[in-house]
Amino acid sequence: MARTTRFGVIGGGALGGFYGCLLAKAGFEVHFLLRSDAEHVRCNGWKVETPLGDFEIRDVNVHTSAEAMPPCDVTVVALKTTQNGMLPKLLPTPTSQGGVVLVLQNGLDVEHDAAAIVGSERVMGGCCFLCSNKVGAGHIRHLDHGRILFGDYSPKEKSISEHARAICDDLLYAGIEAKSVDDLAAARWKKLMWNIPFNGLSVVLNASTQELMESPDSCALARCLMEEVHQAANTCGAVISEELIQKTLDVTRDMVSYDSSMRLDYINQRPMEIEAILGSPIRHARARGCDMPRVEMLYRQLLFLDRHSKRLQLGERG
Amino acid sequence: MARTTRFGVIGGGALGGFYGCLLAKAGFEVHFLLRSDAEHVRCNGWKVETPLGDFEIRDVNVHTSAEAMPPCDVTVVALKTTQNGMLPKLLPTPTSQGGVVLVLQNGLDVEHDAAAIVGSERVMGGCCFLCSNKVGAGHIRHLDHGRILFGDYSPKEKSISEHARAICDDLLYAGIEAKSVDDLAAARWKKLMWNIPFNGLSVVLNASTQELMESPDSCALARCLMEEVHQAANTCGAVISEELIQKTLDVTRDMVSYDSSMRLDYINQRPMEIEAILGSPIRHARARGCDMPRVEMLYRQLLFLDRHSKRLQLGERG
Repeated sequence: MARTTRFGVIGGGALGGFYGCLLAKAGFEVHFLLRSDAEHVRCNGWKVETPLGDFEIRDVNVHTSAEAMPPCDVTVVALKTTQNGMLPKLLPTPTSQGGVVLVLQNGLDVEHDAAAIVGSERVMGGCCFLCSNKVGAGHIRHLDHGRILFGDYSPKEKSISEHARAICDDLLYAGIEAKSVDDLAAARWKKLMWNIPFNGLSVVLNASTQELMESPDSCALARCLMEEVHQAANTCGAVISEELIQKTLDVTRDMVSYDSSMRLDYINQRPMEIEAILGSPIRHARARGCDMPRVEMLYRQLLFLDRHSKRLQLGERG
Repeated sequence: MARTTRFGVIGGGALGGFYGCLLAKAGFEVHFLLRSDAEHVRCNGWKVETPLGDFEIRDVNVHTSAEAMPPCDVTVVALKTTQNGMLPKLLPTPTSQGGVVLVLQNGLDVEHDAAAIVGSERVMGGCCFLCSNKVGAGHIRHLDHGRILFGDYSPKEKSISEHARAICDDLLYAGIEAKSVDDLAAARWKKLMWNIPFNGLSVVLNASTQELMESPDSCALARCLMEEVHQAANTCGAVISEELIQKTLDVTRDMVSYDSSMRLDYINQRPMEIEAILGSPIRHARARGCDMPRVEMLYRQLLFLDRHSKRLQLGERG
């Protein structure tokens, strides 16, 4: 059976590039909205290195303006959340004939911006567990993993929608380890249990995950932060087993040494996803009467460093 | 009236060098126990630059071994607390004929180590408010301030002892702005209200006090930390007005941009006084049922950075 779903991919970074190429390789019609890599990919296509088997994609549908995109069945948002302010300009055209938006971003309630544009019933969100880097123009190096847990942003009831089922089939057909879940918020909170301590501490303490796990001090601190996030998740209705705390620490200890995305952003003087990963969970939990004092301290430290890094960039440091 | 008090000064850094030289200049017999600067000071004396009027001290009593020191009336401990493990070798000789020990160190309960050696009734502690650097061998640059608040380590009753009165007279005679207090612990906790947030954050966020005060995020964080310390102080019996929180922030905002001692230690890869300034207050407060979650987080971050810096020094970084 031919696969006729048309995908739009907004953002050609390590994530959008990787998943978009897998979909294109499987024969789907994929339209990329690119910026810096547009000319290169238009001329030379994509190059993907992956343990699944290196491959290239030629004759790519490249757009540099959202208005030039055709209507898509699924528009994948693969930008950093720090660029969500652009979505009101980017989403209307590809979603003009219906179709859904799949938000593949880190953080909590990151679907909110897309929902405000196309309506929450047409928005899905996904948590990606992917180790992938963009190593050059149009050149993706996939290192490990790639699972996507996704679900409806505002499910009418806790059951997996027809939309989700159809998209899941397409992703699986393209070789992506996809799983639709009936509680997207719980999946996001589970991921935050890792993202908050390890993204945050890796920036503030200038350390890889391995260095953080090797020191008893930072390891104890990661656990305290994780306990706060776990408590907040439960308060917000995402029931997560307490055992996940120890399990997450164990998995991190066994991981290869890894620079978190936030640390890479900081090192490369790009804006960090502080609001999506820390600010939004803090505000959601606080609205339900749950404070996270240590997470909030980490949040403020990151905001300071973000400002400071921007000042360094501008050469204004006092 | 001739001043006959004989002083021993253990440690010839920015603090011991400065106060010792003021005492010597006033005519007191002062014996310095020095290490790296011993030969230089023996040959060339001390050079002190100060807004009070630059001066030099020649023919200094320099010792490189504590056993060579004469019995002193007042033995001033002017080492970093990270070197307190040496005190059992350093204190017995200068204190052999009685005499008191005056501990001029940062932190809480830092007199404990000296008290274990000479008995707590012979120990006094002092909080110094001094901006001074050692800029070369035997060369002190005093920038500002210099006040010492000092008192008995374990006062029998809350009244200023005879010892304290006599020492206060000597210090004042030497031009040192000294004040004896009847509650040393309260004085130490007040100083910790500054030292904990600003020493700690200046290292973790790699920033001067001015940079910390300029950003609303770090400023709010400093206030939260200060509130925890204030609460802990009260729990430990050091009654401090809540107004001191705002006052301390205001004073810091108006200060010249300043690198805290802990930041200077970190930058120069010297051990930081983490236990005296954060660990000891945390443990004292916890023993009385008062937790300081944010201060403890800062403590763990500093311990991580301390370890990490030592690893950098050893060239072992992974």
